Amino acid sequence: MKATPIPFPPGKLRLRRLGIDTYQEPVLFMHRDCRVCHSEGFEAQSRVELALGERTIVATLNVVSGDFLAPDEAGLSEAAWRLLKAQDGDMVSLRHPSPLESLGHVRAKVYGRRLTQAAITAVIEDVVAGRYSDLQLAAFVTACAGGRLDLEETVSLTRAMVAVGERIDWGEGLVMDKHCVGGLPGNRTTMVIVPIVAACGLRMPKTSSRAITSPAGTADTMETMAPVDLDVAQIRRVVESTGGCVVWGGAVRLSPADDILIRVERPLDLDSQGQLVASILSKKVAAGSTHVLIDLPVGPTAKVRSAQAAELLGRLLSQVGQALGLQVRVVQTDGLAPVGRGIGPALEARDVLAVLQNQADAPADLAQRSLLLAGEILEFGGAAPAGGGLALASAVLADGRAWRKFQDICAAQGGLRVPPTAAYRQAMHALRSGSVLTIDNRRLSRIAKLAGAPEAACAGIDLHVRPGEFVERGQPLFTLHAATPGELAYALEYATSQADTVHVLEDA
Amino acid sequence: MKATPIPFPPGKLRLRRLGIDTYQEPVLFMHRDCRVCHSEGFEAQSRVELALGERTIVATLNVVSGDFLAPDEAGLSEAAWRLLKAQDGDMVSLRHPSPLESLGHVRAKVYGRRLTQAAITAVIEDVVAGRYSDLQLAAFVTACAGGRLDLEETVSLTRAMVAVGERIDWGEGLVMDKHCVGGLPGNRTTMVIVPIVAACGLRMPKTSSRAITSPAGTADTMETMAPVDLDVAQIRRVVESTGGCVVWGGAVRLSPADDILIRVERPLDLDSQGQLVASILSKKVAAGSTHVLIDLPVGPTAKVRSAQAAELLGRLLSQVGQALGLQVRVVQTDGLAPVGRGIGPALEARDVLAVLQNQADAPADLAQRSLLLAGEILEFGGAAPAGGGLALASAVLADGRAWRKFQDICAAQGGLRVPPTAAYRQAMHALRSGSVLTIDNRRLSRIAKLAGAPEAACAGIDLHVRPGEFVERGQPLFTLHAATPGELAYALEYATSQADTVHVLEDA
Repeated sequence: MKATPIPFPPGKLRLRRLGIDTYQEPVLFMHRDCRVCHSEGFEAQSRVELALGERTIVATLNVVSGDFLAPDEAGLSEAAWRLLKAQDGDMVSLRHPSPLESLGHVRAKVYGRRLTQAAITAVIEDVVAGRYSDLQLAAFVTACAGGRLDLEETVSLTRAMVAVGERIDWGEGLVMDKHCVGGLPGNRTTMVIVPIVAACGLRMPKTSSRAITSPAGTADTMETMAPVDLDVAQIRRVVESTGGCVVWGGAVRLSPADDILIRVERPLDLDSQGQLVASILSKKVAAGSTHVLIDLPVGPTAKVRSAQAAELLGRLLSQVGQALGLQVRVVQTDGLAPVGRGIGPALEARDVLAVLQNQADAPADLAQRSLLLAGEILEFGGAAPAGGGLALASAVLADGRAWRKFQDICAAQGGLRVPPTAAYRQAMHALRSGSVLTIDNRRLSRIAKLAGAPEAACAGIDLHVRPGEFVERGQPLFTLHAATPGELAYALEYATSQADTVHVLEDA
Repeated sequence: MKATPIPFPPGKLRLRRLGIDTYQEPVLFMHRDCRVCHSEGFEAQSRVELALGERTIVATLNVVSGDFLAPDEAGLSEAAWRLLKAQDGDMVSLRHPSPLESLGHVRAKVYGRRLTQAAITAVIEDVVAGRYSDLQLAAFVTACAGGRLDLEETVSLTRAMVAVGERIDWGEGLVMDKHCVGGLPGNRTTMVIVPIVAACGLRMPKTSSRAITSPAGTADTMETMAPVDLDVAQIRRVVESTGGCVVWGGAVRLSPADDILIRVERPLDLDSQGQLVASILSKKVAAGSTHVLIDLPVGPTAKVRSAQAAELLGRLLSQVGQALGLQVRVVQTDGLAPVGRGIGPALEARDVLAVLQNQADAPADLAQRSLLLAGEILEFGGAAPAGGGLALASAVLADGRAWRKFQDICAAQGGLRVPPTAAYRQAMHALRSGSVLTIDNRRLSRIAKLAGAPEAACAGIDLHVRPGEFVERGQPLFTLHAATPGELAYALEYATSQADTVHVLEDA
């Protein structure tokens, strides 16, 4: 059924970098009067295959009638320019791409049919090759969301995602890893756990992601303290010298399909259990981990809303992990309220540093969670006896070994940095006296994002109260941080309209 | 929960028409060094609201670092330019749009929940207001596809789609209409039926669509013979003077939400029963029809593949029609093979003209189908007694009244035209002698589209054989027609790789 594409027609066009940032979708701009455009019958939104030397990409066409592009030029968006590794003036060939046969599998999924390993592999290979338009990616993501991937399909998706990327081989011995299933603002335990575990002699090369739908990912927060954009060779050197690292996984093409799917999931704000599991575990398998501790915060406004949902997700993670030769241990944690005080990359980094440095005002909840999880990993990896992990982790944090190890890791990654601070701030005050009943994680996240997080590293929310605390009328509940007045005003407007985001109950 | 947007900030930008055709998605181009871009914290793929006088639109941002745009300019795509009714040099205000609350309903649907009338109305109102990005539209379309809308949701969707558009009021009396549920190449009965029915004194103002996933829609084919892009006042004049018309429904904002959804469905090639019914019936209700005959071609490679599927779809159409005060009658017809010989706008028009003009070589199947359906409508509208419709329709076609009426209608619509012919042609020959067993409608459609149909009106396929016919080795099976050598080569390559599209069985 697979049609061979026709050879490239003889006419070539001169490439021009237009400097248009379309956020990763490769876009091609051709003039309406372009001869190749005419003879090939290309139209606006046509998918067009471009060849430059050995390299080919598929881009979406925008037809230009303006005068900023000449008829013998092919203008490229930044994403297309990068993918094609083009130079100004290069001559490019263009043709219709082969029909996208794997889209039939996406349709089959929409119509409720199960997908085989071969079908999923075909889709993911085409996704990574850039053959899917953003619209088609959105359809695939939507078709798989809402629990529509079963166990076998999830295993297939995970395998396919591992297969299309790089894979790090750490040789003999255990490779510890952890992952927190998002939804809990400020839950930045990784940067406390990794130095503790590494200080106890276990290897923990942690690759983290940037934010998907949250105001900060671990990689965004770590980046305010040290470079995270390391290649595999650099990561290997950091881990060999320190035993650990906290780097951005996206930079090393571990599960590159995941990065493409996440880009589309982000504006849709859609979650899919199967894609979530495949996303998490494909990165872990590709990173060469052998043991993964999964932190599942559970709470009514966390990503996982009930203990039962956590059980189901935990079981799926373990089963898929097993199918891929990965040991998975799941820990449910409290997901009722944000962890620490900061929400947003730099504000969260400030909390992490306070814990690592044993500062008197360090957020106790962040410290406790980190020690609990670090203890589990120490036991999981055999560095502490059963039941002895927490005590060992606490000792390593208390005596400064964790902070020294963190400094070593940051230095090895390229140098410790001071997180930035925001130029624009605005406190939100309690409208009445009483007890803080609940804090709405989802709305807080939204406000922090409206304030500019994570793109603006200094932006976010600094939370001044915790559930159960008594507050006086007029007392600040949280402070908005923003890099621009526009973002501050926007976040403020929304925060004001959602007055019970921090719900204060008047005492009877 | 609805947040009020903040007022527009004081800074304005000078509008510039960039002449970039993004195929209807409104796109805004701002320079990286633009002051408003900075102070508002806009980023690539941000959704930005633009205001010009009383008019506002939401567009997707592309950030430009090239030199074709100045930092104080806001460049617009053609779609954005049209929606904003902008003039070069107009000063525009920009802000973050309100959070798109109705996207929560789309997510709810993805997660398997039912949507209320209020929820669907909120989505459709936002869609028509241009607040959905293409990605978000793709998610909505995908979430509703594959039978995920029930009867009540389908009624709600139809009502919402009618409510956001114009509605034609024809006053007292019957208004006849017909619709064919696609999937059968060349099935252009409308242009034979309308003049027959109008010649018998019934009103039949037919608004048709352009192709969605097929090589030609009725409007595309009619356009090769007369203008179809009429406004409501023009349509009214045509129908008052002739009793009928065949125009493009998209030009009159009947169910404009449908046109937007179809634009996204098209590249996804996804069908959804609920959206299909809402799409069909919302246009009919908005067009002011009282009686609608639905032609459901059934066949293994037609859109509706079995009599049972046709029964279910027919029942849904009748039920939704009833809920909206529309009389619906459904006729199942033979969907085994293409109707007539031509596939593609101009080639189909040639077949229609042959039937209307009673030419000796007119395709008999197209004539028979048209007469059957016209007879049904004549009975449905009381212009013929039960059982007498076919005879009346046949008489009106045979004696030339239908052809004269068609000429009157074309003249009233702006003048009869001669369909164009293709400059590039290539016959495909039988590889062996034998009987034509089957013809694959879907592959034929694909080949016709690869040849350039419907965008190139002259492009498509001329079919020379029918199922059951005996063919000699080397005899032409069909001829490809294309407007450009590139398209011809591309269609030819695919047609060659799919040798059994016309399946010839060697006689034993």
